[in-house]
Amino acid sequence: MSSQNQPNLRIPGPVPLPDDVLELAGSQMINHRGPEYADMLDRMTKNLKTVFMTKNDAYFITSSGTGAMETAIVNTISPGDKVLSIIIGVFGERFAEIAEAYGGDVTTLNFDLGQAADLDKVRETLKGMNDVKAVIFTHNESSTGVSNPLEELCQVIHEESDALILVDAVSSAGGVPIAVDAWGIDVVATASQKSWISPPGISMVTFSDKAWKAHATSTSPKYYLDVQQYEDYLKIGQPPFTPCLPAMFTLEVALQSMVDEGIENVFARHHEIAQHTRDGAKALGLDLLPDPQYASNTVTAIRLPEGLDGKAFLSEVNKNYNVVLGGGQKSLVGKIFRVGHMGWVETDHIDEALKAAEETLKAMTS
Amino acid sequence: MSSQNQPNLRIPGPVPLPDDVLELAGSQMINHRGPEYADMLDRMTKNLKTVFMTKNDAYFITSSGTGAMETAIVNTISPGDKVLSIIIGVFGERFAEIAEAYGGDVTTLNFDLGQAADLDKVRETLKGMNDVKAVIFTHNESSTGVSNPLEELCQVIHEESDALILVDAVSSAGGVPIAVDAWGIDVVATASQKSWISPPGISMVTFSDKAWKAHATSTSPKYYLDVQQYEDYLKIGQPPFTPCLPAMFTLEVALQSMVDEGIENVFARHHEIAQHTRDGAKALGLDLLPDPQYASNTVTAIRLPEGLDGKAFLSEVNKNYNVVLGGGQKSLVGKIFRVGHMGWVETDHIDEALKAAEETLKAMTS
Repeated sequence: MSSQNQPNLRIPGPVPLPDDVLELAGSQMINHRGPEYADMLDRMTKNLKTVFMTKNDAYFITSSGTGAMETAIVNTISPGDKVLSIIIGVFGERFAEIAEAYGGDVTTLNFDLGQAADLDKVRETLKGMNDVKAVIFTHNESSTGVSNPLEELCQVIHEESDALILVDAVSSAGGVPIAVDAWGIDVVATASQKSWISPPGISMVTFSDKAWKAHATSTSPKYYLDVQQYEDYLKIGQPPFTPCLPAMFTLEVALQSMVDEGIENVFARHHEIAQHTRDGAKALGLDLLPDPQYASNTVTAIRLPEGLDGKAFLSEVNKNYNVVLGGGQKSLVGKIFRVGHMGWVETDHIDEALKAAEETLKAMTS
Repeated sequence: MSSQNQPNLRIPGPVPLPDDVLELAGSQMINHRGPEYADMLDRMTKNLKTVFMTKNDAYFITSSGTGAMETAIVNTISPGDKVLSIIIGVFGERFAEIAEAYGGDVTTLNFDLGQAADLDKVRETLKGMNDVKAVIFTHNESSTGVSNPLEELCQVIHEESDALILVDAVSSAGGVPIAVDAWGIDVVATASQKSWISPPGISMVTFSDKAWKAHATSTSPKYYLDVQQYEDYLKIGQPPFTPCLPAMFTLEVALQSMVDEGIENVFARHHEIAQHTRDGAKALGLDLLPDPQYASNTVTAIRLPEGLDGKAFLSEVNKNYNVVLGGGQKSLVGKIFRVGHMGWVETDHIDEALKAAEETLKAMTS
C-alpha cells in the first residue's frame, strides 16, 4: 500500500479499501426508487441475514455505527424502562449514554479496561434486578481490543431474565461469528467501514420478533431511525430515505463475496491475522492490553512503554513510515496504540505496521 | 451520458456525477481523527457558510436529508411546543410528521399541489396563534416542482412572530440563493446528493444563535443528531461519529468550486437550465404543474396528458431512450413526470430527456 504512496491505514476503521472496491465506490448514481436498486437491496438483505445466521429482519441505514446503536435503543426502549448496560470501554459508555438520553433507567456494570465482562458478575447483577427491559453492551470494544464472550453472555442473560439483548457489534460483525438466532440476540448493530470492506456511510441492524414486540409499545420518539419505515419500504424494494449509494455499491459486492467464500472462512482469516498481529507484538517485547483469553480478532491494543510520549510515537510512525496507527482513547490516551486488522488485510500490512512501531520505539528510547 | 451507455439520470437527486467526481468518491479512506481530515473539515465548513451567506455554525452529518430535517426539530423543539407547518407537498408533510413524532403541537397550513405558500394566509394564520415556537416548511418542494418565496416568507414570519424558522432546503440549497443571515433563517437543512454534485451520504445544517438558545432548553431526546456533539468535535477538527468519507471528499471539491465560480453564477446557471427545461416542455405542448411564478430552478414537474398510463410512460422512456425521469408521488402518481436539473447538468442532458418524453408520448397516444 505504501509503495503506491498511500498510507498503510491501520486504525480500527475506516478500513483501507482495495482498488476494485474504490472503483465500485466511485460508480455512477442510480435511481434508488427503480428496479435496479430493488434487486440490489433484495440480494444484500438476504446475504446480510446469512452472515448474521438469522431469519430476523435486517436493514441498511445511512448513518455511522452510532446511528445503528441509537436505532437499537429508540425502537425498543421507552422512558423509565430498566436497562442493564455492561461496559468494558468507551463504546459501552456511549451505548449507556444513548439509553440515558432516551430516558432509560440505566444500571451500569463496569469492568476494568482490558477485561471482558465477567459472566458471574453479570449473572449476579441480573439476579438482583427485576423487569429488566434490555441488556445492552458492546461485543468488541475497539478502544481496548477486547471481545466479550458473546455466546456465553447471551446464555447468562437468557437464564436470568426476559430482557432484550441489544448488541453493539459495530467493530466485530463481519469479522467474528455472531449467531443471531442460535444465541437469541434481538438487535445487532454494525457499520460498513469496519469488517465489511466498504467506506463509512451505511449502518446495518437485525431486528428479532421480540424486538418488534417492544417496538409496538415503545414510546421513544423516532422518525429517521424508526425501523418501521425501513420495513415498510423494504416490502416495495426501496429505502425510506435516500441511501448512501457508494457504500451500498461496495457492500453489495462485499456481502456476496463473504457468502461465496463461506463465512466460517472469513472468520478464520480474521482469527489468523489477529494471531499474527498478537504474536508479532509479543515478539517485539510489547505487552498486549487485553486479557489474552478475550483478545479481539479485529483490532489489537498494545501497551506503550511507560513514560513514552504516545502522541509523538504515533506522529513519528506516520511521518517516517507512512503507517497510520490508532491511539488510545480517553484514559488510555498515550498509553496504548491500536492496530486494526479487519476487512481487507494481509500479513504484509501488519508486518509493515509492526516494523514501523519497532523502529520508532527504538529511536525514541535509545 | 447515454453515449457511454450510462443512463441520463434526471430524477431530482441523486444527481448524476461527472467522471472526476466519481473518481473522488472512490478515493482511499483516511483517518477521520487525523490532521488531513481536520484541514478538510475546516475548509468545507468555511465554504459551506459562504454558500449559505451566514456567520452561523454549520455541520456535516452522515444521514439523508430527512436526518437533517430531524436535526432541525430535535435540537430546537420540546414536546408541547407550538409549531406551524406550512405544507405545499409531500416533503412539507414529512417535516410536519417529524415535528409530531417529537411531540410538537403542530398546526398545519396546506396549499394546493403546484402552488407556493400564500403569504397573506401565512400572515393571517400567525396572527391567530400565540407563542409559536417554530415555523417549519420546505423551501423547494421537489414533489411538485414549486419553490416557496423564501425571503418573503421569512419576512412575514418575522413580522408576525418570534418563531424560529426551520427550513427544509434539501433540494434547493446550492442551486438557488438562501441568504441565511439576511433573511433570518435559524436552521437550514440540505443533503449532498442534490445540487452539491456529490453522492448521497452527507447532510448539512446551519444553526443560528437563536436556534442554539432553543437547544439549551429543548427536552427532545437526541444523541446521534445532537448538534452539540458536532459543535464540540468541530472545535478539535473532528467529526463526532465516523463520517461518510466518499461524500465528504466530493463535497470538499464541490464547495470549493462553487465558491471559486461565485455563488451568484452557480445560481444563475441553475436558473438558465431551469428556464431551458420549462421552455422545452412548453414547446412540446405540455403543461407545467407549478404556478409559473414559483416554478423551481432545480426540478421541473410536467403534467402528463389525461388518461395516459404514467407508469408505462416512465418505463418506456427508460427502456427505449436510457433516460430516467422522476414520477409523481402520492396523489400525483401517474399524473406528472419530473425532470431534475440541479448540480451537474448541461442543455444536452435536458434536450435528450425532453426528446425521449416527446417521442414516447407520440408513440403512446398515436
